Amino acid sequence: MEKIVLNFDNMKVEDSQIAEIEGKIADAIQSMESKRGEMAWRDLPYNQDAVINEILDYVAEKSPKVNALVVLGIGGSALGPIALQQALNSQFYNHDTQLRGGYPRLFVLDNIDPATMSDLLAVLDLETTLFSVVSKSGATSETMAQFMVVKDLLESHLGLKAPEHIVCTTDAKNGNLIKIAGAEGYKTFYVPDGVGGRFSQLCPVGLLPAAFCGIDIKALLAGAAEMDKMCQNADYMNNPAYAFAILHYLAMKQNKNITVMMPYSDKLKFMADWFAQLWGESLGKQGMGQTPVKALGTTDQHSQVQLYVDGPDDKIVVFLGADDFGSELQIPKTFDDMPSIGFLGGHTMGELLRASQKATEYALTKAGRSNMTITLPSVTENTMGQLFYMLEVATAFAGELMGINAFDQPGVEEGKNAVYRHFGRPGF
Amino acid sequence: MEKIVLNFDNMKVEDSQIAEIEGKIADAIQSMESKRGEMAWRDLPYNQDAVINEILDYVAEKSPKVNALVVLGIGGSALGPIALQQALNSQFYNHDTQLRGGYPRLFVLDNIDPATMSDLLAVLDLETTLFSVVSKSGATSETMAQFMVVKDLLESHLGLKAPEHIVCTTDAKNGNLIKIAGAEGYKTFYVPDGVGGRFSQLCPVGLLPAAFCGIDIKALLAGAAEMDKMCQNADYMNNPAYAFAILHYLAMKQNKNITVMMPYSDKLKFMADWFAQLWGESLGKQGMGQTPVKALGTTDQHSQVQLYVDGPDDKIVVFLGADDFGSELQIPKTFDDMPSIGFLGGHTMGELLRASQKATEYALTKAGRSNMTITLPSVTENTMGQLFYMLEVATAFAGELMGINAFDQPGVEEGKNAVYRHFGRPGF
Repeated sequence: MEKIVLNFDNMKVEDSQIAEIEGKIADAIQSMESKRGEMAWRDLPYNQDAVINEILDYVAEKSPKVNALVVLGIGGSALGPIALQQALNSQFYNHDTQLRGGYPRLFVLDNIDPATMSDLLAVLDLETTLFSVVSKSGATSETMAQFMVVKDLLESHLGLKAPEHIVCTTDAKNGNLIKIAGAEGYKTFYVPDGVGGRFSQLCPVGLLPAAFCGIDIKALLAGAAEMDKMCQNADYMNNPAYAFAILHYLAMKQNKNITVMMPYSDKLKFMADWFAQLWGESLGKQGMGQTPVKALGTTDQHSQVQLYVDGPDDKIVVFLGADDFGSELQIPKTFDDMPSIGFLGGHTMGELLRASQKATEYALTKAGRSNMTITLPSVTENTMGQLFYMLEVATAFAGELMGINAFDQPGVEEGKNAVYRHFGRPGF
Repeated sequence: MEKIVLNFDNMKVEDSQIAEIEGKIADAIQSMESKRGEMAWRDLPYNQDAVINEILDYVAEKSPKVNALVVLGIGGSALGPIALQQALNSQFYNHDTQLRGGYPRLFVLDNIDPATMSDLLAVLDLETTLFSVVSKSGATSETMAQFMVVKDLLESHLGLKAPEHIVCTTDAKNGNLIKIAGAEGYKTFYVPDGVGGRFSQLCPVGLLPAAFCGIDIKALLAGAAEMDKMCQNADYMNNPAYAFAILHYLAMKQNKNITVMMPYSDKLKFMADWFAQLWGESLGKQGMGQTPVKALGTTDQHSQVQLYVDGPDDKIVVFLGADDFGSELQIPKTFDDMPSIGFLGGHTMGELLRASQKATEYALTKAGRSNMTITLPSVTENTMGQLFYMLEVATAFAGELMGINAFDQPGVEEGKNAVYRHFGRPGF
């Protein structure tokens, strides 16, 4: 098995700083162990044999009839599926039947912009479209509003066949969506108890769209299980998740209130978006937290690296790299007589991409800026499973170090209530 | 003409704080006026009649033969074109001939990932593809490496017809690309002297791809010209660019080292990426600067708003809103018996999106967090021209307030040199 590799050599942290918080670290480790039973997301690599088979059966039945899968979901219901699709399928998957191996196109509607939704509905052939509605509570305004539009449209176009075009992923017992699904006869999958939105990528929320796009969900979970073993190592600086969290925690204490995730691979681009929710929403509370920033190499060398190298020393950069990009392109020796570009000839695009990552690491380190690197030998289901799981454990562990509950989000209630009032929802 | 509207009511800035820096503001205003001649990008709304006609003629000639335009460019050569395309054309433009009114598909290759580039080249029909190579210096490693791959491919597939499939936008006199274009007989457009990458959206760098996608580039420049007038107002708090810069400058002095741009419209999503380069690369130097963060409403209400409301008070949020989204969708009254979603029925998606923006503004303000709002009556060429131009002037003015040169990027040299060394470029 290929293992993801973390390198912390360029973090500006002294052993003495780690020693100073040894007691806190010990408490956090104990807490992670004692609370393991409450963290239901930690069991997802192990306890889903039945649901995996159910997903695969459902996909096998539906897939031949479906030309487009449209996910109606927001937050964790969208970010994990987008990140995984980007990692494991072609960037031009939706453009070309051959590139997608006959699997349905995937669209994720994670916003309520009426122009986007109107245009998507205009492009789709409803007869061959499946809508996957994802909301644990069944009360997510954006997702449920989209669902109401889609339900109406399907019923007016397809009549009694409409329910075959809807699948729901929601709580097994509570909320509107499970009630509606029961009444309408929709196929349903469940978000397990104790699995919150941003920790839901390894349950049916993430597994169902992945399976529809030909992604091997068993291998994904196997990678997560391997990482779970590494994340039980009490030798904390050799525990990838604990070490990641400890170094971020110490950086926060050094007033580094920003963490940049900078993949150097288009495949890993949207891991930065998924991580931004995980880290931002879990830890951003009680006046604490660190603002996650999404970057992309080499693209953002021409946008953000000037700031990272020469601006304030207020951030960590986490590079996400890959040893193997899955394809390679040779740069021909076309302009040997022009020194400022001729040197590129004879190399490959992948070499240039990897060398650019090393160069940015070097430039940051030389400027005294903390950075760390996570390297995937190649971007596969297994290594992605490792990466998702490692970052989830790291986030939970950082919450323990900070003394906050990483699993709630009290700060979003005020805004929700304001919408309810504006729309005249009774009782608000 | 519709004017964009800025609202600063929710910025936590006292008049006395502005009064304290009155001298600095006066100096900056004078400096902007005396340096106007050096800022060639400020003249772009006025001095391009000839080149506009040349672009329109070229598009009229090529467009019927071209099914895909591929921009090879990075940084400002990519971010502006992407932002404008997203703003003015459908999000599903590339998916559907009808949605794009017969104009060619647009692909922007702003990274060197070999998997992405291989897959794109596999999807394209070279016979009907035009490659637009954009590099002022002609020495941008990423763009020139892509160009070398594409040139080789075109020549091996199309032989003597290859040059008809390449158009270059570069410096008129200096650099490799203008030399190569001359030798090969490529069509060329020019980046005017004194117009740097991140200030190039209103020159052929931005105008050429826009015109190929049916965007009215004259209206874009007319909007910029209107904004230029507003940006000459010496009554600085009524000058949108100056006020934007002053409030950001004061926020930096309050240790708000982060500025979030949060559009509440999919059309405006990539303005946050364009602005991130403009603000980050122009002002992030000498240990100063502010880290730009890209968000999107309502999507990021389910990812980042918890942090913005309840995390550290270390940021400004700049909302970008639209009064008119260009389309509307009615939410049916489907679930009147379910209070937590029934209240949505009878409203529109656009209402929900606008109400969500107001609610997030309210929640931030209630939590004492600084935020401001830029509203476009509708998203048109004219209002986009206003927005691009306003933010460019604001950035230049902020540079003056900070006492730094907003137009260089010394911090990226170290990384470039490291790549040259790694690849054995002579002299490095």
